[in-house]
Amino acid sequence: MGANAHVEILDSTLRDGAQGEHISFSLQDKLAVVQKLDKQGIAYIEGGNPASNPKELEFFHEARRLQLQNAKLVAFGSTRHRDTTAQKDLNCQALLEAGCEVVSIFGKTWDLHVREILKTTLEENLKMIFDTVQFFKAHHKTVVFDAEHFFDGYKENPDYALAALQAAYDAGADVLCLCDTNGGAFPQQVYEATKLVCGRFACKVGIHCHNDCGLAVANSILAVQAGACHVQGTYLGFGERCGNANLSTIIPDLQLKLGYTCIPQDKMQRLCKTAMFIAETANILPDNALPYVGASAFSHKAGMHIDGVKKVSRSFEHIDPSLVGNQRNLLISQFAGKSAVFGQLSQWDHGLRRDDETIARFVSRIKDLEAQGYEFESAAASTQMLALKHLGRYTPFFELEFYKILAQKEGNSDPGLATAVVKIRVKDRSEIRAAEGEGPVNALDLAMRKAIELFYPQIARMRLVDYKVRVLEAGQNSASRVRVLIQSSDGENVWTTVGVSFDIIHASWEALCDSIEYKLLKDQVQPL
Amino acid sequence: MGANAHVEILDSTLRDGAQGEHISFSLQDKLAVVQKLDKQGIAYIEGGNPASNPKELEFFHEARRLQLQNAKLVAFGSTRHRDTTAQKDLNCQALLEAGCEVVSIFGKTWDLHVREILKTTLEENLKMIFDTVQFFKAHHKTVVFDAEHFFDGYKENPDYALAALQAAYDAGADVLCLCDTNGGAFPQQVYEATKLVCGRFACKVGIHCHNDCGLAVANSILAVQAGACHVQGTYLGFGERCGNANLSTIIPDLQLKLGYTCIPQDKMQRLCKTAMFIAETANILPDNALPYVGASAFSHKAGMHIDGVKKVSRSFEHIDPSLVGNQRNLLISQFAGKSAVFGQLSQWDHGLRRDDETIARFVSRIKDLEAQGYEFESAAASTQMLALKHLGRYTPFFELEFYKILAQKEGNSDPGLATAVVKIRVKDRSEIRAAEGEGPVNALDLAMRKAIELFYPQIARMRLVDYKVRVLEAGQNSASRVRVLIQSSDGENVWTTVGVSFDIIHASWEALCDSIEYKLLKDQVQPL
Repeated sequence: MGANAHVEILDSTLRDGAQGEHISFSLQDKLAVVQKLDKQGIAYIEGGNPASNPKELEFFHEARRLQLQNAKLVAFGSTRHRDTTAQKDLNCQALLEAGCEVVSIFGKTWDLHVREILKTTLEENLKMIFDTVQFFKAHHKTVVFDAEHFFDGYKENPDYALAALQAAYDAGADVLCLCDTNGGAFPQQVYEATKLVCGRFACKVGIHCHNDCGLAVANSILAVQAGACHVQGTYLGFGERCGNANLSTIIPDLQLKLGYTCIPQDKMQRLCKTAMFIAETANILPDNALPYVGASAFSHKAGMHIDGVKKVSRSFEHIDPSLVGNQRNLLISQFAGKSAVFGQLSQWDHGLRRDDETIARFVSRIKDLEAQGYEFESAAASTQMLALKHLGRYTPFFELEFYKILAQKEGNSDPGLATAVVKIRVKDRSEIRAAEGEGPVNALDLAMRKAIELFYPQIARMRLVDYKVRVLEAGQNSASRVRVLIQSSDGENVWTTVGVSFDIIHASWEALCDSIEYKLLKDQVQPL
Repeated sequence: MGANAHVEILDSTLRDGAQGEHISFSLQDKLAVVQKLDKQGIAYIEGGNPASNPKELEFFHEARRLQLQNAKLVAFGSTRHRDTTAQKDLNCQALLEAGCEVVSIFGKTWDLHVREILKTTLEENLKMIFDTVQFFKAHHKTVVFDAEHFFDGYKENPDYALAALQAAYDAGADVLCLCDTNGGAFPQQVYEATKLVCGRFACKVGIHCHNDCGLAVANSILAVQAGACHVQGTYLGFGERCGNANLSTIIPDLQLKLGYTCIPQDKMQRLCKTAMFIAETANILPDNALPYVGASAFSHKAGMHIDGVKKVSRSFEHIDPSLVGNQRNLLISQFAGKSAVFGQLSQWDHGLRRDDETIARFVSRIKDLEAQGYEFESAAASTQMLALKHLGRYTPFFELEFYKILAQKEGNSDPGLATAVVKIRVKDRSEIRAAEGEGPVNALDLAMRKAIELFYPQIARMRLVDYKVRVLEAGQNSASRVRVLIQSSDGENVWTTVGVSFDIIHASWEALCDSIEYKLLKDQVQPL
C-alpha cells in the first residue's frame, strides 16, 4: 500500500452525520446532498437506515430516480434481531426494500455490548452477524460489515472481536469496516489493530472513526497506512457528540499529501464548493478554521507571515489553496499592520507608495472602528467601501432622507406586518416608498429597495443569502451593541458587509447600504 | 516515557491564538485569561511578543502584579536580526524588558526560509540562534527554543534543521520545541523525527503543531509518545488559519487516556469552565462538537445510543463527562423518539407511564415545531415550558394585550431611540408601560420588563447574556423566518429559550417571554 493506491470513500453525512446535534435534513435536502456528493466524485453515499423511519425508506425510493455518475447509494441497518432469521427480520426486510446495490450492516464486536445491551449470548451474536451477511450476499448485495466498537472490543476481548469479523468474513462480507464508535481510540492502537486485521482477512478492510479525542482524521489516516482501503466519514465532520471523521480533511490529506487516490483528481477543486453547499443545506455555519475548506484555512494575520507568503507562498502555506478551490486571505487587523492595508488600498490607487501617510491614517481608522465592534476580517466588501471612501474615490450612489418603522402585535395573535417608509435622494430627485414586511428589517429592506430601484433597477437581482447578528457586549440586557453581518449574492458573486449599532434596525441599515453600494460599484452602474 | 511521566503544557492562546481570524483580546481580557489558565493548572502561559507592539509590553508589566499559583509567564520573540548582536537588538531588548523568567525564542530551521525570507546565509542564521539563546541564558532565563518550520526543514534538509537545533542546544537552550508551523506534517513523520531528536539532544524536547491537515492533536500526542515532554498549543485551538493544537483536547487525551500528568489531577474538572470563559472572553461561540469541552461532546441523539448509555454508560461514552466538568445530554428530536421525551415529561409528572399516549402527542408536537424552525436541542428552558404546557400544568404568569414599536432615522444622523409601548394583564389587572431603547428589541424588552416587574419584582435580577439570530431559509431576501436564541442569567443559573417568526421582534418576544416565565417558574413566585 502506498502512493497511487486507491481508497474507497463512503460518506455518511446523511446517516451518521444526521445524528449530530443541530443537524437535520428534509427529504429534498437529502436528494440535493446526494447529487452534490456524486459530483464531488464520492464512491459510496450512505443515505440512512430504512428500518428506522418511513421517511428514510421514502428517500431511497426517490433517490433511485437520480442519475448518479460516480456514486453508489448505500442503505444502513443492523444485523437481524436475536432468535429469529434474517428472512423474517423487519430490519433486514426494510434494507432489502431500499433497493440499493450496497448495504452496510452493523454488528456487535464488543462482548460488553452483546451481554449488556443486546442481552444475548456471545454465540448468538456471531450467528446474527453470519446470517445477516449471508442473507444479503444471497440477494447479490455488496456487503460492508460495520464492526461496531471494534477497537474497544479488541482491547478488552481481542479473540471475540476477531471472531465477529470472522463470522462476517465467512458469510462473504466484501468489506470489514473497523469502527471506533465511541471515539476513544488512539493512533498507535488503530494502526496496530488494523494491520493485524489486514494480515488476517483477504477482503477489503475499512475504517470508521469518531472524534471524541480529536483524533478521527489521524486514526483514519493511520488505518489507511496500515492497509485499510475504505474510509467512512462525513463530509464536514457532522455526527453525534464530537462528530465523525471529516472527509473534506481526509480526502486531501490522503490524495494531495500522501499520494493515495480517493476521488477523481479533477474533482479536487470542488472540495470547498461542496462543503459550502452541505453546510448551507444543513443550515450550519461551518467552522472557519476547518482544514482545507474553512473560510480562514488560508488566512494570514501575522505581519511576518503576510510578508513571507507574498515572497514564497509555500513558506507559510502547506498547499496551494486553489487545489481545493479555496483562496488566500490577507487580513486587515491591528496585527497585520501596514502590509495588508497597503495591499487593500493599492488595488484602488495604483500610484500609492508604501510609505504614503494615508496608509497609517487608514490603519488608525480601521482600529477605531474595530474597537467599536466592526469586523472587517469577515466583511471584505465593507472594507473595500471604506478604503474607497478613505481615498476620496467614492461618490455616494444615494442618500437617506429618513426611514420610519412601525411594528405591533395584539394579544396572542400573530404579529401584524411591520411597516416601513423610506425616503431616498439621488442628486436633486427624492422618492418616498413604503412597504410592509415580515418584521422591521424586512420592511426596511423592501421599502429601501423599492425606492433605490427607481434609480438603479440593477439591484433587483441581488438577494440576501445570510444575515447574522452578534451581541457584542454580554450582560447588558438587550441594550448591547450588535453587529450585523449580511451576505448578499447576485448569482455571480457573494459579498459580505457589516453594520454596528445599539439598534438592530440601524446596524442592518448600514450593512444593507454597504451591500447595495458594493453591488452598484462592482457593476459600475449610473443612475437612470 | 510512559504512564505517569510529566508533560509540561505551554498555552499560547494569548500569543499564537490571537493570530486567529476573528480573535482579539484587550489588555483586561488578557489578564483575566492568564488568571483562569493559572487556576486551570497550566505550567506556562505565553503572553505575547513584547517587541511587536507597545500594548504587548504593557501587558507584561501589568501581569507581573498577578499572584499566580501554578503558571509562569512566557515572553515570545525572534532570534536577533542578522548582522547585529543580541545585546543591541531591539527585539531582544524588549524581551528582556518584559521581565519574564522564561522566554521562548523562535528561529529558522528550514533553509528555504533562511535564504528566501530572512535573506541571509545559512551560517549567519545559526549564529543568530546561538547568540540569542546564549544572551538570554547569560541573563539567567529559562529558554525555550521554538524551531520554526522544523518538520518542513527536516524533510528538505535534515542536516541543516538539526544544525539549527544544535546551535540552540550548544548555547544552553532548556527546551528544543519542534514546530510544525505550516501544519503540513503527518503523524508518522512527527513520531520519527521527534524520536531522533530526543535521542540526539540531552535537553527537553517540545512539540508545537498547527491544524492545517486536521492532525495537530494527533501529532502532539505522537511526539509525546516519541519522547517529547513539553507541549505547546492554545486552550481552544484558536490560531492562524486552521488553528493551533487544542490543549483542552490534548490535556485529557494525555492525562485521562494515556496516563501522563499535564496538570494537577484536581484541576481536571475545571476544563469546561475554563473553555467557556476563554470563549466568552474572545467573544467566540465555541464549536459544540469540541472533544471533552463542547456542549455536544456528550450529547446522544440516536435512540439506540440513548438506550445503551442509560444501561451502561461506557457502552457509548469513552469517559465519564463529569471528569472534565461536562455533562451528558439526551436530545429531543425526531431521532431520539420516546425515550428522551419520556425522560423530559416524567420530571414533571412522576406518575407518567412509558406507554402513556401523551408522550406520542408531545413527540409529534415537537416535530411540528422543529419543522417550523424551533430548536429544542439548544433551548432546554423552552422545552421545559413546552412540556409543562403540554401536560396542562402551566398557568400563565401574565398575558400580552399588545405591543407597539416605532423606530426611525433621519439623514446621516444616528438613529433616534426606538419607542415601545407594552400592555400586560395579570388576572384582572392591566398595566401599560412605555420605554425608549437602543433599537426595537431593547425598547420592547425594557417596556415589557417595566410592565411585568409591577407584578413580579423578582425579574429585576435577570439579565440577557447572549442573543443570537439565525436566518432559517436562505435566498428569501430579508423575509426569511428567523430563530432567536436568548441566554439569560440570574447569577445562579443560565438558561436558553427560543423564538421563531418571520419578524425578529416577535421571535425575540417569544424567547423573552419563555425566559421570564422560566425564571418565575423556577423561583415558584406568586404575583404581588
